Amino acid sequence: MGKDKGPSFNLKTPKGTKDWSGSDALLRDRIFTTISNVFKRHGGTALDTPVFELREILAGKYGEDSKLIYDLQDQGGEICSLRYDLTVPFARWLAMNSDVRSIKRYHIAKVYRRDQPAVSKGRMREFYQCDFDIAGTFDPMVPDAEILRIVSEVFEELGWSGRYTIKLNHRKILDGVFAVCGVPEDKIRPISSAVDKLDKMPWADVRKEMVDDKGLDGEVADRIEKYVMNKGSRELLDTLLKDETLNANVTAKAGLEDMALMMDYLEAFGVLDKVSFDMSLARGLDYYTGVIYEVVTEGSAGVQADAPEAQKAQKSSKKDKSKNSEDDDRSNDPTLGVGSVAAGGRYDNLVGMFLPKAQIPCVGISFGVDRIFSITKARLEREQSIDALRSSEVDAYVMAFGGKGFSGMLKERMEICQKLWSAGVKAEFNYKLKPKLPQQFKAAEQGAIPFAVILGEEELAAGKCRIKEMGLPEGHPEKEGVEVTLDSLVSELKTRLSKKSDGAVTSLAQQLQGASV
Amino acid sequence: MGKDKGPSFNLKTPKGTKDWSGSDALLRDRIFTTISNVFKRHGGTALDTPVFELREILAGKYGEDSKLIYDLQDQGGEICSLRYDLTVPFARWLAMNSDVRSIKRYHIAKVYRRDQPAVSKGRMREFYQCDFDIAGTFDPMVPDAEILRIVSEVFEELGWSGRYTIKLNHRKILDGVFAVCGVPEDKIRPISSAVDKLDKMPWADVRKEMVDDKGLDGEVADRIEKYVMNKGSRELLDTLLKDETLNANVTAKAGLEDMALMMDYLEAFGVLDKVSFDMSLARGLDYYTGVIYEVVTEGSAGVQADAPEAQKAQKSSKKDKSKNSEDDDRSNDPTLGVGSVAAGGRYDNLVGMFLPKAQIPCVGISFGVDRIFSITKARLEREQSIDALRSSEVDAYVMAFGGKGFSGMLKERMEICQKLWSAGVKAEFNYKLKPKLPQQFKAAEQGAIPFAVILGEEELAAGKCRIKEMGLPEGHPEKEGVEVTLDSLVSELKTRLSKKSDGAVTSLAQQLQGASV
Repeated sequence: MGKDKGPSFNLKTPKGTKDWSGSDALLRDRIFTTISNVFKRHGGTALDTPVFELREILAGKYGEDSKLIYDLQDQGGEICSLRYDLTVPFARWLAMNSDVRSIKRYHIAKVYRRDQPAVSKGRMREFYQCDFDIAGTFDPMVPDAEILRIVSEVFEELGWSGRYTIKLNHRKILDGVFAVCGVPEDKIRPISSAVDKLDKMPWADVRKEMVDDKGLDGEVADRIEKYVMNKGSRELLDTLLKDETLNANVTAKAGLEDMALMMDYLEAFGVLDKVSFDMSLARGLDYYTGVIYEVVTEGSAGVQADAPEAQKAQKSSKKDKSKNSEDDDRSNDPTLGVGSVAAGGRYDNLVGMFLPKAQIPCVGISFGVDRIFSITKARLEREQSIDALRSSEVDAYVMAFGGKGFSGMLKERMEICQKLWSAGVKAEFNYKLKPKLPQQFKAAEQGAIPFAVILGEEELAAGKCRIKEMGLPEGHPEKEGVEVTLDSLVSELKTRLSKKSDGAVTSLAQQLQGASV
Repeated sequence: MGKDKGPSFNLKTPKGTKDWSGSDALLRDRIFTTISNVFKRHGGTALDTPVFELREILAGKYGEDSKLIYDLQDQGGEICSLRYDLTVPFARWLAMNSDVRSIKRYHIAKVYRRDQPAVSKGRMREFYQCDFDIAGTFDPMVPDAEILRIVSEVFEELGWSGRYTIKLNHRKILDGVFAVCGVPEDKIRPISSAVDKLDKMPWADVRKEMVDDKGLDGEVADRIEKYVMNKGSRELLDTLLKDETLNANVTAKAGLEDMALMMDYLEAFGVLDKVSFDMSLARGLDYYTGVIYEVVTEGSAGVQADAPEAQKAQKSSKKDKSKNSEDDDRSNDPTLGVGSVAAGGRYDNLVGMFLPKAQIPCVGISFGVDRIFSITKARLEREQSIDALRSSEVDAYVMAFGGKGFSGMLKERMEICQKLWSAGVKAEFNYKLKPKLPQQFKAAEQGAIPFAVILGEEELAAGKCRIKEMGLPEGHPEKEGVEVTLDSLVSELKTRLSKKSDGAVTSLAQQLQGASV
């Protein structure tokens, strides 16, 4: 390569992929930590599978979407493909490990889809999934309810309290409704997908699709409307439990009994008020066999829309908010509905696809971390949170100044850093022998580092230095910093760090909780 | 798929890859957390790059090893390959982001090599790298010294205090030595790789390779011996600084001056005593331009071998330990020497391969997490640490018991779990309506969960429950547990958790520090 020529190739990442760096990488990392802490709190155990699988493991699992699978080149040896999701590798692992009859596993990792990317909308070819699943044969609805408790803990700890709704339905209730309304057996799945669109189109349009496109009798559609437009909680369940037609259908009855148990358990877990029993929720994937759920947030369809009035009010307010990026973001993840930030359900038959004798019932949730990231970042930016701009979590910048003939005090700065690091304090210093003071302050400001530790030659000779909180307003008594002895530096700094409410140690929840939008 | 037939394909992971689950996954995760906490403490910012790159980005970077690169199939569109390491993607990112002139970045991620796998020896086709690099133009040796401080913090916090040595050398010193000893220019790299083998073969064999295989004059070899067999610290440097022949060589002189600065800075950082200036360290990769280093631990070559006597003593003691797995483990990572657990150096010319005008000097370290994992796991097992067996970090198992007609107290167990989760305590319960008490205790034991929270109907009616520490010896005053009020349950449990020194909250360092082997 000649010294005067540029490289002969494109300096870019492959189509539909991107680098994550700086404040985006740090924020996403904090979201992962928040989510995995909740997973661990519920006894979740980590599973890590290879990024590629034997191609035959993935074959026949994704229907039409199989064309989106990335294949590895045949370089001799086995034929492999990049994983498309984390669920099939989990089912493969369960089938392989026949000693494991039950497990709570979590997996946070990238998956790959050769889809048409739309980077600006967050639709990527390489993206993260955060999955938690409970496998095993247990008494009905107990693990299912814990999954929704997990969902609630995640969003509370992300600082979304009061801003999200868990939409809940049951495949068997929906299938029972279709049966008693008179939907022919072969039309149940197509009609179900039409119902699933109620979060983004009005009933009239959905009815039109059912009747005109899918050949459903108009009267059948009208009977369906009476059921699927309902949203609520226990009172809706009580109404349905009194519905003799519905209860005469064994499938529906089984679903309603599950739902009654579920609500009892959700109450014991303290999350019933976060859940909306939403009869229009159908979920796209065929493999669900029991409860299904989807989490929506402000700006995405259906939130706080338990009553038609609320829904209408929400629609008009949505218009005002359409400039916010979360309204437009669409994930390419088919496990997530449009506008949802997490979704899942019970799937009792998937493991059996690998090993019929190893049938293991499962229930799980997948968090759409790309959408959660965009929404969280937009909120931090709107609230002008300094943390939105940070690219590291450094607590203190160790700097020095001096007059004419100033040595730069490099080794002294190193020794102070060493002291701070040994005490677990995150600290940086300038790598120059004789950095200028404004240069050092600028670095601390750019990194949004909350504290400066300032060394002066005279102070240091007296065994002292200065702690200065960055960004204090003029006139603040500590604006110029406070002098402390070197012996007390660590404890004085730690006290200030823990006091600083919006400092580096703050959780996302503390930062975002109750903040106005 | 018929019910009686098994699947028609192999249930396995691709060759050279494996699933990580249970206690192995948890232990590896704790190692990652320990390492990334140190990286963050030094102001490291995370970089995440796609798992595949445009093939032309990787081309021409790995010499002969290019044949080990995994290619993606051409499915139309760009031609891509899986990344081979994290360094080339970092250099590509630096070249692409011309606004970034300096950065401390870390990256913990998987890399891919179509090598002949040896799973039992830990040589895999998919494995993790943990890299920290400092890019930018600074005053000499300042970031270089911080990298070694980082190395020391990582191993101290992994609990390896006193069990590792950082071998340090400088490419310019080595090249200067070869020059003054009379090695012809074209033989410098081959002779350098021969020297690099001194950690696993005696001088006589290395000399033989130099003279017989590589055609070096025997007298030149003998002159080399006088230099490269030296190990030490400041006193060795002082001797070399007085060596007029060596100092007459500009390259050697520059290297020695760097080394003098380095030692000053290492002292300021409090890590000089962990470093051995080892003139036989050469490091395989061609792209190093300054300091080079490698971390060795007990059982791997060269540790505590500052004097020939020590080396001899170590060799015989090594024999006794040969049953320990770490002696045999060999990483396939060419950035790591045989027997080393971390390695790196300064490489000032790599970024320029992508964009000559964007030349950015770099210095970095890569931790061999697979070897660190094996050694840590072996130690935990030898010390029969309960944590070696744990697959989750659960603090408490909430259980219930009762006499005839016992309800199972499912909702009560759920409510207690809810209380614990809300307080951040990691808790589990049995998913059965009416589990038997021995069954619940067995689950707690199998999970090595330190505490049981036991509900009885009468106690609960009186607003009380029982906290029982698992595994207490017979006769211990709290063997049967202690009764606490429900209101004080969380605080009583948290007090006990923080007291329990070998409990789930312990760091690896606390667990392994000072333990006998």
